[in-house]
Amino acid sequence: MEIAKRRGFFWPSFSLYGGESGFYDFGPVGTLLKDRFLRLFRQSYLREGGIFIDTPTVTPKRVFQASGHLEKFEDLAVKCSRCGRYDRIDSSLKKSGIARETTTLEDAISLIDEGKLICAYCGGKIVSAEMMSQMFRVERGKGYEPYYLRPETAQGIFVNFKLLLNQNRGKLPMIVCQYGKGYRNEISPRQALLRQREFFMAEVEVFLDPEAGWTRDPPEDVVLTLLQNSGNKLRASAKNAHESGVIANRGMAYFIYITYSILRKCGIPEDGIRFRQHRKSELAHYARDAWDAEAVIDDDWVEIVGIADRGDYDLRKHSDFSGEPLSAEGGAVPVVVEPAYGVDRITMAVLSSSYYVRENGFKVMRLAPEISPYIVAVLPLQIRDGLDAIARELFAKLMNLNDYVAYDESGSIGRRYARQDEIGTPYCITVDYQTKEDSTVTIRERDSTSQIRVKIDDLTGYPILQNTKLMKELSALSLSASKK
Amino acid sequence: MEIAKRRGFFWPSFSLYGGESGFYDFGPVGTLLKDRFLRLFRQSYLREGGIFIDTPTVTPKRVFQASGHLEKFEDLAVKCSRCGRYDRIDSSLKKSGIARETTTLEDAISLIDEGKLICAYCGGKIVSAEMMSQMFRVERGKGYEPYYLRPETAQGIFVNFKLLLNQNRGKLPMIVCQYGKGYRNEISPRQALLRQREFFMAEVEVFLDPEAGWTRDPPEDVVLTLLQNSGNKLRASAKNAHESGVIANRGMAYFIYITYSILRKCGIPEDGIRFRQHRKSELAHYARDAWDAEAVIDDDWVEIVGIADRGDYDLRKHSDFSGEPLSAEGGAVPVVVEPAYGVDRITMAVLSSSYYVRENGFKVMRLAPEISPYIVAVLPLQIRDGLDAIARELFAKLMNLNDYVAYDESGSIGRRYARQDEIGTPYCITVDYQTKEDSTVTIRERDSTSQIRVKIDDLTGYPILQNTKLMKELSALSLSASKK
Repeated sequence: MEIAKRRGFFWPSFSLYGGESGFYDFGPVGTLLKDRFLRLFRQSYLREGGIFIDTPTVTPKRVFQASGHLEKFEDLAVKCSRCGRYDRIDSSLKKSGIARETTTLEDAISLIDEGKLICAYCGGKIVSAEMMSQMFRVERGKGYEPYYLRPETAQGIFVNFKLLLNQNRGKLPMIVCQYGKGYRNEISPRQALLRQREFFMAEVEVFLDPEAGWTRDPPEDVVLTLLQNSGNKLRASAKNAHESGVIANRGMAYFIYITYSILRKCGIPEDGIRFRQHRKSELAHYARDAWDAEAVIDDDWVEIVGIADRGDYDLRKHSDFSGEPLSAEGGAVPVVVEPAYGVDRITMAVLSSSYYVRENGFKVMRLAPEISPYIVAVLPLQIRDGLDAIARELFAKLMNLNDYVAYDESGSIGRRYARQDEIGTPYCITVDYQTKEDSTVTIRERDSTSQIRVKIDDLTGYPILQNTKLMKELSALSLSASKK
Repeated sequence: MEIAKRRGFFWPSFSLYGGESGFYDFGPVGTLLKDRFLRLFRQSYLREGGIFIDTPTVTPKRVFQASGHLEKFEDLAVKCSRCGRYDRIDSSLKKSGIARETTTLEDAISLIDEGKLICAYCGGKIVSAEMMSQMFRVERGKGYEPYYLRPETAQGIFVNFKLLLNQNRGKLPMIVCQYGKGYRNEISPRQALLRQREFFMAEVEVFLDPEAGWTRDPPEDVVLTLLQNSGNKLRASAKNAHESGVIANRGMAYFIYITYSILRKCGIPEDGIRFRQHRKSELAHYARDAWDAEAVIDDDWVEIVGIADRGDYDLRKHSDFSGEPLSAEGGAVPVVVEPAYGVDRITMAVLSSSYYVRENGFKVMRLAPEISPYIVAVLPLQIRDGLDAIARELFAKLMNLNDYVAYDESGSIGRRYARQDEIGTPYCITVDYQTKEDSTVTIRERDSTSQIRVKIDDLTGYPILQNTKLMKELSALSLSASKK
């Protein structure tokens, strides 16, 4: 958290006015990191034939009446007699040393009557419990029906099903993606980016013919860690897990695999990703089955992507509610598999798995060049003798090809390397006195801190990440450092 | 509008439930177009040394108390006696044939008393007028102070001034950018994307030392059309306009120039952009001076970017309200120049200036390759004899380098060309039988419809837009078509 704030990844919002719990800002470096994740996400799904849409966050009431969110999207809250605070019942259960789940109001009230629940904040006695809606209501003024802020981007896709199917020329499977803000009126937000009132999500709705389903198998050679809701834990490819019945639906298996690939491209290590199946009691009101991709954040396994089998729930509800048939050719209502990415949580997982401290005490973010805020930084050794002018010219050329390039000329070269290490820049290009003689520069690889010398012309022809020869050399350096 | 909906640029939101005025969706093609604009925007400001931030849309009340929005961000509304609808007074004035402006409630009431105002919808008599807040209130539940939806992204930057200045290592000028959603409770939204309740903006706050100001001059050889609020119209470079006193502030002049460059890169023609100075009565409550970039949309000049001199208004207000000094080194409060881009409106302007109909009746969007939803489309001539497999392989390779690549195999090749013309894809690559013999493909240039033949290897080495030789040849074809 210290480095996240100091280096501009993220920080609590509205600190000028004492802060507001449940809200975080992405700073200059975090905004670029998020941006690069979204590009990875977009490219991965464009390759699968996905189409994208961008719909409003503010939504008329009837959409969430149809989807069931207005009725069912609520949390069980308890109130403390001493500090007066509301809190989620899970926090109170944990504090009270009660290991079981409580999801019904009746159960909570009986626990309160037995005097067993105490407040997670102050230890005071819990006196009451109630269901609280997680939906934010938006007031338009007298005489008008209120709007609601969307708790997920998915409904913006479902209500557009017919227009989208038309865009997809009537064909199933249809893969529709949307990223943007979501909102939940959390009772008591905690844990930094993990539980916010406003958050950033990237969702995919895969519409499938109920008969044909999803037909492509995931590959056999990518092996995942799977935790079934029976308690069984296994290592298997998504393909084998589907064939042996561990993952019931082939579409679920395929998009569990796709999700794993994306998370690996983000640089999260193989042993830092697992897929956990929801218990029946955990399932959202729209889901038949669900698997969470979990990653380690601050020593805990945390959900970062949810992959749900929504069946025909949403289309059927919207069809009933609107009176419009929402079916594909042949008249059946498609079924839906939904991978939903929590972008803030993925950011946390990426940072958490990348952070390490060198023997000399220096801090490093070992971010993959596919996700780091900057692919490369250009640094003049000195800001005199024309070195800065050469560096600025090189910066402009590299920007044309690489999009994410930093330029830094302030402070000693050592301090600048340290700064780039902390924000995860894999490669620093330094313009020095030799550059003036032979038009070469040094490239410093972050993890090994080793430098190689290359011609400027070898960097400005095409994107650095596409320069296979150079990338091979630099990756070897990084790898040698990780083996030490 | 017909092509916008049919081809997936944008369409009215929530049509399944009868629609909701003031809300639009970006469809599959529009989402990519918007995405490409944001990349252009980001690259332009990263080159200027800009930093980016991403802050919540939901905002505590005290932020907008400080900024003045809660008190001053309102519209004068009139109510019809016949249809009962509320409307903006401008619409009623226009309908009533009254050419002057009315901004005060007193003035509006006296016009009503004289019986001069009629309803723009039904022609009924206007009976009352009132000031209506444009702020959307978000309810959190009993006992909690409400939040508000931001009407601009700018306040998220101002309240973070100290943290951002620290990120910028205390240096001025500091250029901070943010893009995202903004919300205004419009009385009576009309004109498609031009006046929405939820919209997409990209804003830049340039913080300047009040003494030193902005020091770099814009270039002399880029000439703009300027309309002063005195009524004077002139053609001048931003540099000359500043030196002759037409644009009072050098920072304003510089970012008017930057804005012009970005709009030109979007493909809006030179004679389709002008800058109009606000009249004193038009200025927002925070502005000392303002110039709008206007473009032609549906035969009208429409504001698409606002460039405002906000002075020290916002930092002073937040400083007063929070009790925190918001100053740079030396203690003075920085002054601010703000270019604010209306992304939806820019999209409309780009489409409006690109659309034309061929002699054969076919419709074309002449979108620049820097902004088009797809840079290139890959089409197999037939989906047999292995042509589709080669095309799919080429698609995957091109995606690695070009990000925005379409793949289309459905329908006759002529229909597919027509479809790509309508969504503005500048280049179509066709895999045909000759491809199997000599590994060449055809590239069809959209505007000329001419084709050239190239080796596949020439396309897969580096991004197509970076292939100078190829781009020269293709641009020449496009140019020859525009001269016809």
